[in-house]
Amino acid sequence: MSERLGLDQLEMRGNFIQRHIGPDREQAQAMLAALGLERLEDLIDKVVPADILNREPLKLTETISERAVIKYLRRMRERNQVLTSMIGMGYYDTILPSVIKRNVLENPGWYTAYTPYQAEVSQGRLEALLNFQQMIIDLTGMELANASLLDEATAVAEAMTMSRRLAKSSSNLVVVDRDCHPQTIAVVQTRASSLGYRVLVTDPFDALEQHEFFALILQYPGCSGEIHDLTAPIAIAHQKQALATVAADLLSLVLLKPPAALDADIAVGSAQRFGVPMGYGGPHAAYFATRDEFKRSVPGRIIGVSRDVHGQMALRMALQTREQHIRRDKATSNICTSQVLLAVIAGFYAVYHGAAGLRLIAGRVHRYAQILAAGIVESGHQVVSLCYFDTIVVRMPNRAKRIAAQAEEAGINLRVIDADHVGISLDETTTRDHLRALWQVFVSPVADLPDINGLDGRLSECIPEKLLRGDAILRHPVFSLYHSETEMMRYMRRLARRDIALDRSMIPLGSCTMKLNAATEMQAISFYEFNAMHPFVPLYQAQGYQQLFAELEDMLCDLTGFQAFSFQPNAGSQGEYTGLLVIRKFHDINGQSQRTVCLIPASAHGTNPASAALAGLQVVVVACDDHGNVSVDDLRAKLAEHGDRVAALMITYPSTHGVYEQAFRQICELVHQAGGQVYMDGANFNALVGLCRPGAIGADVMHLNLHKTFCIPHGGGGPGVGPIGVREHLAPFLPDHPVVEGVNPLKGEHGTVGTVSAAPWGSASILTISWAYIAMMGAAGLKRATLTALLNANYVARRLAPHYPILYTDANGWVAHECIIDCHEFKKTANVSVEDIAKRLIDYGFHAPTVAFPVADTLMIEPTESENQAEIDRFCDAMIAIRHEIREIEAGRAAIDNNLLHNAPHTHRLLLQQWNLPYSRQQALFPDSHQHDDKYWPPVGRIDNVYGDRHVFCSCPLDWTEADSGAV
Amino acid sequence: MSERLGLDQLEMRGNFIQRHIGPDREQAQAMLAALGLERLEDLIDKVVPADILNREPLKLTETISERAVIKYLRRMRERNQVLTSMIGMGYYDTILPSVIKRNVLENPGWYTAYTPYQAEVSQGRLEALLNFQQMIIDLTGMELANASLLDEATAVAEAMTMSRRLAKSSSNLVVVDRDCHPQTIAVVQTRASSLGYRVLVTDPFDALEQHEFFALILQYPGCSGEIHDLTAPIAIAHQKQALATVAADLLSLVLLKPPAALDADIAVGSAQRFGVPMGYGGPHAAYFATRDEFKRSVPGRIIGVSRDVHGQMALRMALQTREQHIRRDKATSNICTSQVLLAVIAGFYAVYHGAAGLRLIAGRVHRYAQILAAGIVESGHQVVSLCYFDTIVVRMPNRAKRIAAQAEEAGINLRVIDADHVGISLDETTTRDHLRALWQVFVSPVADLPDINGLDGRLSECIPEKLLRGDAILRHPVFSLYHSETEMMRYMRRLARRDIALDRSMIPLGSCTMKLNAATEMQAISFYEFNAMHPFVPLYQAQGYQQLFAELEDMLCDLTGFQAFSFQPNAGSQGEYTGLLVIRKFHDINGQSQRTVCLIPASAHGTNPASAALAGLQVVVVACDDHGNVSVDDLRAKLAEHGDRVAALMITYPSTHGVYEQAFRQICELVHQAGGQVYMDGANFNALVGLCRPGAIGADVMHLNLHKTFCIPHGGGGPGVGPIGVREHLAPFLPDHPVVEGVNPLKGEHGTVGTVSAAPWGSASILTISWAYIAMMGAAGLKRATLTALLNANYVARRLAPHYPILYTDANGWVAHECIIDCHEFKKTANVSVEDIAKRLIDYGFHAPTVAFPVADTLMIEPTESENQAEIDRFCDAMIAIRHEIREIEAGRAAIDNNLLHNAPHTHRLLLQQWNLPYSRQQALFPDSHQHDDKYWPPVGRIDNVYGDRHVFCSCPLDWTEADSGAV
Repeated sequence: MSERLGLDQLEMRGNFIQRHIGPDREQAQAMLAALGLERLEDLIDKVVPADILNREPLKLTETISERAVIKYLRRMRERNQVLTSMIGMGYYDTILPSVIKRNVLENPGWYTAYTPYQAEVSQGRLEALLNFQQMIIDLTGMELANASLLDEATAVAEAMTMSRRLAKSSSNLVVVDRDCHPQTIAVVQTRASSLGYRVLVTDPFDALEQHEFFALILQYPGCSGEIHDLTAPIAIAHQKQALATVAADLLSLVLLKPPAALDADIAVGSAQRFGVPMGYGGPHAAYFATRDEFKRSVPGRIIGVSRDVHGQMALRMALQTREQHIRRDKATSNICTSQVLLAVIAGFYAVYHGAAGLRLIAGRVHRYAQILAAGIVESGHQVVSLCYFDTIVVRMPNRAKRIAAQAEEAGINLRVIDADHVGISLDETTTRDHLRALWQVFVSPVADLPDINGLDGRLSECIPEKLLRGDAILRHPVFSLYHSETEMMRYMRRLARRDIALDRSMIPLGSCTMKLNAATEMQAISFYEFNAMHPFVPLYQAQGYQQLFAELEDMLCDLTGFQAFSFQPNAGSQGEYTGLLVIRKFHDINGQSQRTVCLIPASAHGTNPASAALAGLQVVVVACDDHGNVSVDDLRAKLAEHGDRVAALMITYPSTHGVYEQAFRQICELVHQAGGQVYMDGANFNALVGLCRPGAIGADVMHLNLHKTFCIPHGGGGPGVGPIGVREHLAPFLPDHPVVEGVNPLKGEHGTVGTVSAAPWGSASILTISWAYIAMMGAAGLKRATLTALLNANYVARRLAPHYPILYTDANGWVAHECIIDCHEFKKTANVSVEDIAKRLIDYGFHAPTVAFPVADTLMIEPTESENQAEIDRFCDAMIAIRHEIREIEAGRAAIDNNLLHNAPHTHRLLLQQWNLPYSRQQALFPDSHQHDDKYWPPVGRIDNVYGDRHVFCSCPLDWTEADSGAV
Repeated sequence: MSERLGLDQLEMRGNFIQRHIGPDREQAQAMLAALGLERLEDLIDKVVPADILNREPLKLTETISERAVIKYLRRMRERNQVLTSMIGMGYYDTILPSVIKRNVLENPGWYTAYTPYQAEVSQGRLEALLNFQQMIIDLTGMELANASLLDEATAVAEAMTMSRRLAKSSSNLVVVDRDCHPQTIAVVQTRASSLGYRVLVTDPFDALEQHEFFALILQYPGCSGEIHDLTAPIAIAHQKQALATVAADLLSLVLLKPPAALDADIAVGSAQRFGVPMGYGGPHAAYFATRDEFKRSVPGRIIGVSRDVHGQMALRMALQTREQHIRRDKATSNICTSQVLLAVIAGFYAVYHGAAGLRLIAGRVHRYAQILAAGIVESGHQVVSLCYFDTIVVRMPNRAKRIAAQAEEAGINLRVIDADHVGISLDETTTRDHLRALWQVFVSPVADLPDINGLDGRLSECIPEKLLRGDAILRHPVFSLYHSETEMMRYMRRLARRDIALDRSMIPLGSCTMKLNAATEMQAISFYEFNAMHPFVPLYQAQGYQQLFAELEDMLCDLTGFQAFSFQPNAGSQGEYTGLLVIRKFHDINGQSQRTVCLIPASAHGTNPASAALAGLQVVVVACDDHGNVSVDDLRAKLAEHGDRVAALMITYPSTHGVYEQAFRQICELVHQAGGQVYMDGANFNALVGLCRPGAIGADVMHLNLHKTFCIPHGGGGPGVGPIGVREHLAPFLPDHPVVEGVNPLKGEHGTVGTVSAAPWGSASILTISWAYIAMMGAAGLKRATLTALLNANYVARRLAPHYPILYTDANGWVAHECIIDCHEFKKTANVSVEDIAKRLIDYGFHAPTVAFPVADTLMIEPTESENQAEIDRFCDAMIAIRHEIREIEAGRAAIDNNLLHNAPHTHRLLLQQWNLPYSRQQALFPDSHQHDDKYWPPVGRIDNVYGDRHVFCSCPLDWTEADSGAV
């Protein structure tokens, strides 16, 4: 102890860096040694092409401690002034029950989970999503619902494109109810524009039959709050061979006749007000419901009920075409993800309240709205609204702004519709005090306030009987079993225990970067001042958020070399689409509208061509060489062939094969020389942070997956955040917003690409996570993280290489941040598929790597920097042991159709039966002795996909135990 | 849907009541019907004696929603003004790592667990506690540590009483270092006074050899910060055949020679600064370490390593004499509980930082202290301290108060020692900014501030080499495996998965009231403004806390009928002890010092007589009748016998047998007629809340277990809170505090009982939990909860009565809030013990009820109001199925020494072996088909207590896997 440590050592600056990064110095040294390296920095020379390296110091030099970050964010939140929101327009305050907040939103067992591709280790969140679907089915009356979409506005856009696919009408006109939310109209216009549809915004009750159209989009209740019987316009739509979409408020549907009863073809909307905080715009879950006959055209994912090989009921993603993977540029949607965590919360909200609870909430909101209106009328003002659920419009000639200002002084934000009208939306949190506060604004100060009970006694229901619903909702047992907090807590935690999330073991998913989501990073999303804010409040109330955006933009510009960012795209796919729109706009205003060809390498993620198609671009594929790199020769050829029709090249870097191409700069130069722009897919930016600034070496636009590289948790399959960075010449075209001014401060005379998401800054509240991560890591930490990600991936490759062929490496045998192992031989030698290996890993307690992407019959492994050597070794040991198991089959010592892989995963139920398998119980269920410590028991065996595909069943079974009782 | 609901229904007031209470109205109706009742209120007539019922309306009529409670607490927290604390005196700011906060403090898997009596379902928290013990052993150098005590001051008091038991000296003098913390001295004086010891507070370096004494108590470093080599006084103590106790600061021990090396016999102290927020005084964990030879005299509990029946390593409470149960008034301590949750956190703090991390933290604190001192000296002031770790004393003649006021303006609280001296304590959170801020206070404004790096370069270490420690600490693997957040998260969650807590199933513990700990109730303990406050700040900075105390006192007075409460006792046992001291004081000042007899019914909880003994009272047992009620005849006899020597009767109501005595009022009157006072043990107050106000029907003093009745979670075995309520005549004697004025505002000329806990208001921060519970339930909700607790218990009794004899009921066959089933016959008929039943319940997924208390060979079952009918039925079904299993043995169809009960709990390891048991795997591990849904797999089989008792081993094994590998 007598050595004297330096003060700088004692001060432990950047202590978080060591918390985020898995291997400690000793482990890192051992792993480097295994690779024949001495220092972490040696990886730069060995692995990263010299010409992409950034040599400039970053501005982000400081690292901030965890404690300081929380302090800083506490100060930031104080700059958000949270008023009672009565703005409405699709966003409503709501009460997230504490038991759900604590046990889901703040529980890594839920938020660190991955998308449920491996259904056997995802039964918990699949059940939660099935609850969500059932709730949507019940409330909309539709036959089928998906497991959520990004937001209401993009859900409407998806409904429009689905209508185009299904409608028999040959028109290219979309008719949009002018009482739709303005952000919905704006997103539809953007989407329609790139696809070449015309949009007519009109009153659907005014001579609708005069138009030919393929899609009719209605809002129910309208943005103004008014409820119309939509039966007539929907009937006209059907006469016109168009599809009718109703964007419906979920809470109002508790009381109102559901869209299905109006004969709607599609019902969409937001599930935000079912317990999900407004969060200044997001993230929230949108819903999408339709007729059963359309089920194979539904965007996104649908969870379905199937069975496992033992005949036991099991859940899976039933219809998740991921058609962008399969159909690429023929895909009709580029949607990859959903908003799982938020859909789970909304579903649990319904489970906790049940039908009776929801009826009380909706009933109270509606009753208060009527009492409020009656009181305002009594005071001599005119309430324009006739038939409404929660929103009324008050006519205040020339005084709308003044009234809103007075309300603001009383702590309430109203909606200023125009100079003469204010809108007032009530919600679950509205109390008698709010009514009285509003009356004080409207009523002349000396007058007596109306009496609430008195008004209530004199009310007559403003909604006609024929628009009220008469059917029962939420009749499935799940909606009545868990109404006490004790039961609810146990139910949610029981579901979480069924799943493998990052709180159990590594999830080595290639391209998905399942790294640590640190608890400190997650703090601010629980702060009231961040989560209770409506997205359309005046900017001066949201200065904390504005500071967050400005600082995060600065950080990301510093790291990427771009000059501006838009946070509006709320998923990676949305980022791609938006980036391509920006490029199109750039060409358009330069008189180059003919540039509509988008070059995409053969190795690209399927979403790339799908996004290009949605952006109205024609996809031309560029070939790849044997290492998975873009063929420069073919690129030259394609550029020559398409000449001044080339709009852009989309390129993922490092490539989807997990390799740094050597020719990145050259490729960019060639594209630029041809007049094209370079769109870089930032999915693999985790291999570049702190090393390379794409904006400085040739990329013009890039999206980042903040949920991959910058620590926003995957939430079991969403939320994602896909901001795009652009070089200066593209900045003026970044998205803006129809309601909030100043979203793109660089917007110029030529306008922007429009609006791509419902909320001005997308999923604003979770940007705090990425901000905190970058602040705590600083430049040095981020660089070390990147190098450790390279180290871990190369260490995995080195350990597995003797057992599995590594598919792509650079010329010297190095991989980037992930590696692909080739398993196609095993099909021939042992009848073993990659699927079998993936399922067998469950027996070892692991979530599988990425299966069959980007190449069939491979596994792509990305350990990320957050896993330490012990965990990586445990995983590699499992992989090597499985290779040995395959060898046993190859050698004929294990039966080809009855072996450890074929029968995996093995469940506890097998242990209870007579054991007839040709290997031991121990080999089957405890192949690794570590597991005695913490065995993961899969709740179901291998799921029967064929059965599920044949019997698509996407709602809650009425009796879970029934399906269960057959087993064992 | 056309029925019109009343506005009051829609407003869902008291919605939380339905969340807290398990059975919904339908279930309650069914359960009532099973009991032959119609309405819940019928239970009052049937079960509760009419003469104890409160007929007055309570003041607590309102219920507040969950949202409103959080809002209210947010406003309350704003009234707490949190400054940087440099007061020291045993409380230091610290950083609770977010990953521990989220996954332990905010995770019901940890905080809703019970004390680990059922070791097989508690291996996770037992391992966490073993880590804590190991950390204490390492840091103190002692051979053995317990699993925590309540706080440093009471730990010192326990050390004193243990010294009395073990020391050969016949003196009754305790010598206390005058540089001990004042609260420690005060608590020692209180405890010594009631036991008849004399206390000398003196300088241990000044003529110590002149005294004869049995205990020497030293502080290391001293409260002033000064570090002395304590070898000499300790040597003198040993010459005097006394034991030497060193109260040592845990963080300083990272650098300092440990107490063991000074030859201390006992080391105690607070583990607060290892990640546990100050919380305005608590709760925190104290530690207690000593020589191995003293292990059977250690107060509290010690976790030890043993093995299960299969030879696999397993943990258990090795030495938890619970001697108050066994030795009753011969017991030497009344300590029942420890501070498990806080000890777990402190242990994890050490696990996460490891030796190197702790050395950096301690090193930085110490270096900054020296730099601070050097800067102050440079500015011309005198630093009195010579050899110190983190605390310095500055001499500012006549200016101490002024300097402290200036520091306060700069946002820092200092300690004003006297008119001429201020103390400054640094901690983990101290930064360079703090040093500069302090210099600005001390240095004349125009002068330049000292340069930190410059000062650092010129420092010479103030601690002499001989007082620095040279040995390695924390060398066990657990302290080096989990330094990345990912690994730490997984480790903590893996441990939690091993245990049964309330998040899995009901824990039907009689007398322990394991009810819901609602997430909303738990919110405020995470608020910075509640948890970052030092207990000795000026009251005007703590107005939020003062409001909390005042409001909670009002609520409790309203519910209990008392006139004042003291929150100082931080456990039920402490409450008992304090209440008896109050009674003694009352008699003393009334000239009745001869009243030293405490009457205690035979059925009393063992802690009652132990507390009486500690309070210096002589215990006289009053007999009970066959129903477990106090024999009024025997009471009369004892009162007659002891006449004016009777100080008090201690009575638990409802009795520990779970029955409402009919004669409670009569009993109280008899005692009062005899001049005695009635102490009521409030452990069973859950059966009275809203129905009966003990202060109005005869009780003079009562303690409440806020962790039973008022929803503070058990935390795996602590923290508890045991405030006492008193009638007006006793209020002046409630505890006060040597540092903080105004703790007992009613204190009169005769003074108080003194100080019983280190902190003025005990475990202040968790009082927010009980406050929130009462606020959300209101009078009606609390009453309904009580009645539902009665309903549930009687329903259990009714369901089990055909299968198990119910031991105690009232004359009409009713029980109160719990019931006792008699299992003694099974020993004879089937060789089945209650232990066997308890372990077999694990196979069914349940935590056992209370085993063998208050009567041997029984189980005491308390379902509480929070469990619904489904869960209760599941439990009763399991109990009935087990009865059937016993019948199989009785009938000879199952082997008497090899059966489902004898071999329980069954582990997964059994499934992997050849199955040689005379029943099926299914019967053994899945007796209930519900379990397929969520099987609890016990990590170990039945623990071998005999082996553990013979091989007491209470530190971490060096290689966990070694012991493991032998199994299977």
